[in-house]
Amino acid sequence: MSEVIATYLVHDAKGDLHKKAEGIALGLTVGSWTDLPLLEQEQLKAHKGRVLEVSQLESCDKTNQFLGKNVTKGIIKIAYPSINYSHDLPAILTTVFGKLSLDGEVKLLDLEFSEDVKASFPGPKFGVQGIRELVGVYDRPLLMSIFKGVIGRDLQYLKDQLRQQVLGGVDLVKDDEILFDNPLTPFGERILAGKEVLNQVFQETGHKALYAVNLSGKTFDLKDKAKKASELGANVLLFNVFAYGLDVLQSLAEDPDINVPIMAHPAVSGASTASSLYGFSSSLLLGKLLRKSGADFSLFPSPYGSVALDRKEALGIAENCLKKESFKQSFPVPSAGIHPGLVPLLMNDFGKDSIINAGGGVHGHPNGAIGGGQAFRSAIDATLAGTSLTEAANVHEDLKLAIDLWGVKEVSK
Amino acid sequence: MSEVIATYLVHDAKGDLHKKAEGIALGLTVGSWTDLPLLEQEQLKAHKGRVLEVSQLESCDKTNQFLGKNVTKGIIKIAYPSINYSHDLPAILTTVFGKLSLDGEVKLLDLEFSEDVKASFPGPKFGVQGIRELVGVYDRPLLMSIFKGVIGRDLQYLKDQLRQQVLGGVDLVKDDEILFDNPLTPFGERILAGKEVLNQVFQETGHKALYAVNLSGKTFDLKDKAKKASELGANVLLFNVFAYGLDVLQSLAEDPDINVPIMAHPAVSGASTASSLYGFSSSLLLGKLLRKSGADFSLFPSPYGSVALDRKEALGIAENCLKKESFKQSFPVPSAGIHPGLVPLLMNDFGKDSIINAGGGVHGHPNGAIGGGQAFRSAIDATLAGTSLTEAANVHEDLKLAIDLWGVKEVSK
Repeated sequence: MSEVIATYLVHDAKGDLHKKAEGIALGLTVGSWTDLPLLEQEQLKAHKGRVLEVSQLESCDKTNQFLGKNVTKGIIKIAYPSINYSHDLPAILTTVFGKLSLDGEVKLLDLEFSEDVKASFPGPKFGVQGIRELVGVYDRPLLMSIFKGVIGRDLQYLKDQLRQQVLGGVDLVKDDEILFDNPLTPFGERILAGKEVLNQVFQETGHKALYAVNLSGKTFDLKDKAKKASELGANVLLFNVFAYGLDVLQSLAEDPDINVPIMAHPAVSGASTASSLYGFSSSLLLGKLLRKSGADFSLFPSPYGSVALDRKEALGIAENCLKKESFKQSFPVPSAGIHPGLVPLLMNDFGKDSIINAGGGVHGHPNGAIGGGQAFRSAIDATLAGTSLTEAANVHEDLKLAIDLWGVKEVSK
Repeated sequence: MSEVIATYLVHDAKGDLHKKAEGIALGLTVGSWTDLPLLEQEQLKAHKGRVLEVSQLESCDKTNQFLGKNVTKGIIKIAYPSINYSHDLPAILTTVFGKLSLDGEVKLLDLEFSEDVKASFPGPKFGVQGIRELVGVYDRPLLMSIFKGVIGRDLQYLKDQLRQQVLGGVDLVKDDEILFDNPLTPFGERILAGKEVLNQVFQETGHKALYAVNLSGKTFDLKDKAKKASELGANVLLFNVFAYGLDVLQSLAEDPDINVPIMAHPAVSGASTASSLYGFSSSLLLGKLLRKSGADFSLFPSPYGSVALDRKEALGIAENCLKKESFKQSFPVPSAGIHPGLVPLLMNDFGKDSIINAGGGVHGHPNGAIGGGQAFRSAIDATLAGTSLTEAANVHEDLKLAIDLWGVKEVSK
């Protein structure tokens, strides 16, 4: 069947999940059914939504019990025939979660696309393998760091900061997502300055790194800007997808003249993923849909920071980024709260095909960004070699300093 | 000051709201402050976020008390200097609610734009007054109805349904938001068929009405499609803004070649407004931001349906649509669960400058859509004349049938 199957988590006060499911399946497709003449039922059969599953979940919700609310919790799966909508995300999302998103406690957990619908999506242009080829690193997680405190600073400040970071051995440096086009450090000049610094470091040390420049501005200017970036030799485009729309990302990824990997930043996405009752699951929005739409990288909150994403959700994102599919893989980038002592845990949870991304964990090192980067690289090497960080710290001074400052979480095998 | 002021509702487990506010104001602008040398503080002063207000709210949250969680609830206001971002919504939203949307229990309640920032937004091209001129109705709320069960149906079916609705006296008929481009009823043909029916009814009865056609498809095709619609003489464009992005709406509204009013549908918006802890307030997203971005109409859930928007939120949307501003007004359209018996309540809550919008309340009338429309029109006239609906029903048969079926809510003056 050519269709999209949606899985919802629902909390229903009336308690009749089967009736609710049937109401959704009809309401979001043909409208009504049992009162239609048989001839019309025959005509509309191909358009009718089908309830595939209704399962009640054990509700261990003490809060509702306390409040005296009798709420039934359940999972509902509905198939929406693809004949009903054009095969773009705005049409698909409006069908499966348009009106429904406003209709009480319902969260969209997953979407499954039949192969012919899937074929309307590009997936990443470069993917994990393509990114690895750009930096020439195949056997370990990549290391990324983030510019820090760059608002109001000039180009020289950025160049100095970039140089320090790259000298520490990071593979990628990304713009701060709140750095937009501005007179001090305009988009095009940032790209050129970045190239200059990266080339210099490469000449001096042989270390190759990429700089992700923030693609920003008005939606209908983005393609021209991205093409200009492509021509100027930008390495990677950072993009605040959720401040625009997934379909905008898709159009950038599909454009053959924009030959640059795209790094999706999760800014603003928390507005529609953070609630346990409403919105989208993180694994769908930041994993499956970003990958389908063409993100080469997906950044998301790590499960380790002070305000962290639930571990299962974070792993779900990474799984959707990497699992076998007709698309290339997106690089999962668990972010925020990352320091070198977390590397064994990160590699245990997210594996080799992930990116270790740190801001404070690089810049806040006692030896600055160079020391921070080197501490991370030592931690990665040690973990790959099966050496504990505490042991490795005996011979790697920067790693020792990092562990003294931030601690370490060893993972028992 | 040239700035955007954001108001947040926060729930903080640590309980130190002042520290939290300061952390946000710095973290989303210059990064750090007290550890900067005085000279750098001087250089960065114009870029620094400022905490304007921190107020703790009485927490009457029995749930948290029950769970033994000690959570401080409060309102935080922060000013973000406009020198930090380009004056487009993606940049503004990324600044004030990018990373922050992922950082615990925080809801963005309001944004206030200084006049110079406001000047970067178009507001509605037609507005309430312009729409009134199109239908020639100045002294009452407008009446709108919605196509019903049109998926899988052909053009003749739509034409018949449109004719019935308009004969009932509705001022506007909108496409179902889940009707996309499809072989049975393509976009351009719907526009032409709609014009034909509306002209016919006008010839026969002198009643003028508008048809809102659903503008759908890929983001970067929308402008051409909207221009084509404009050329074909489309009356109104229905647009699922939140399946695309507010900035896409803005670009359509700003385009001088798209000379058609835009009706914003709230599809998918519930994903980021429904939670009381996370996301956007409805009054901000469906009121203020839609109007700024150029929506001539804003549809939102009425406070009267089975699953309804909180009354205060719904009134907040309408207030932001209509209040005195440098922009034209957007027509507030409280929708869902509307029947003729609710007209006194609707007009009491939303006033004359609103649109009464019904699906089932028109089509489900015992005398069909014609009877439904006429029942609504009688209810509107009676309410304007200060007559109770029960009284008016004595002389208006269709109104009587509607009240018998759905009941009535009189409003005591």
